[in-house]
Amino acid sequence: MSVYLSNNMRTRDKKKYNAIVKTSIRLINKLDFSGISMAKIAKKAKVSPATIYIYFENKEDLFTKIYIDIRTKMSQAALQGLDNSKSIEEQFKSIWHNYLTYALAHIDFIIYRENFEQTSMMNNIQQEDFELFGYITNLFQQGIKEKYIKKIPPILLISFAFIPITTLLKFHFEGMICIDDKIIKQASNLAWNAVKY
Amino acid sequence: MSVYLSNNMRTRDKKKYNAIVKTSIRLINKLDFSGISMAKIAKKAKVSPATIYIYFENKEDLFTKIYIDIRTKMSQAALQGLDNSKSIEEQFKSIWHNYLTYALAHIDFIIYRENFEQTSMMNNIQQEDFELFGYITNLFQQGIKEKYIKKIPPILLISFAFIPITTLLKFHFEGMICIDDKIIKQASNLAWNAVKY
Repeated sequence: MSVYLSNNMRTRDKKKYNAIVKTSIRLINKLDFSGISMAKIAKKAKVSPATIYIYFENKEDLFTKIYIDIRTKMSQAALQGLDNSKSIEEQFKSIWHNYLTYALAHIDFIIYRENFEQTSMMNNIQQEDFELFGYITNLFQQGIKEKYIKKIPPILLISFAFIPITTLLKFHFEGMICIDDKIIKQASNLAWNAVKY
Repeated sequence: MSVYLSNNMRTRDKKKYNAIVKTSIRLINKLDFSGISMAKIAKKAKVSPATIYIYFENKEDLFTKIYIDIRTKMSQAALQGLDNSKSIEEQFKSIWHNYLTYALAHIDFIIYRENFEQTSMMNNIQQEDFELFGYITNLFQQGIKEKYIKKIPPILLISFAFIPITTLLKFHFEGMICIDDKIIKQASNLAWNAVKY
């Protein structure tokens, strides 16, 4: 499902494709979804409008694929190097660290994601499609079974275990906090303390 | 600073005033801030446009005063019956309970508040102006001093102690959770476990 660098493409096509995606993210983050046309994207990406339609059916298809790609990348980054032979607590804190580190290095993705999630296109997105969702669900189930994590509704667990990541990122971009490794450690500790058995 | 029922007004004026405020909240929650004019509010509130300008300088003044009033009301509700001779934990959980109970009973306020906070009018709002902000700040300071609460940056404390209230309300309005007394108890426990020493 990766939007960047699809393997079946020739190099020249890949370049065009990536230019479309990059340009779209830049324009949307600047102008919002409503202020954008396929023609505008084509012009700024220096491809012909027909080229965009080879890869994407329409605006909604383009915007949705970009969103899915961003979420997929964030999911992969969060799970990188994760080892399920390690303790639940270690895996939990590793996800926090990986996710935040990746997010801070990809501000454009975070802004795009936040904008997209305000739109009705979000109705077509299934959380279950992302590897991270499945991993966290399993981690919670295992943790509850082995009495490392409290037995409470999953949505309550998520609200304290991982949603604060979004809160902290928002504060970071607003300049109210400067997230570094120390803050990530403190925050993941708070999150773990909230949900641990 | 109360927008509803100012004491210096005659009953007939109060009625008009409250009609303006109520109508504004209803229209904004339906149409968003950009789709609204003072003339439209006047018409729907059944007052003359000139009447609105007796109380409010312009749209921004009207919208901002309504926001401040909502926040003031929520702040008062959260602090109702609070007793600072009680333990930090009891006061903490009492704020959770009062705030969520009030919010669930005033959905229109919550929607207005969320919409307002997306606008640039928010730049004129000082968090310090609300009683609740001062109360929580003091509670944290006292808690840290007496080693009931972890000594970490206040913004981290807030992210786990009270921001999850907003998350849970969002999930409630989206139908992903149904907040009742049991959920409030579980959630305030998670929040307390996150920040306690």
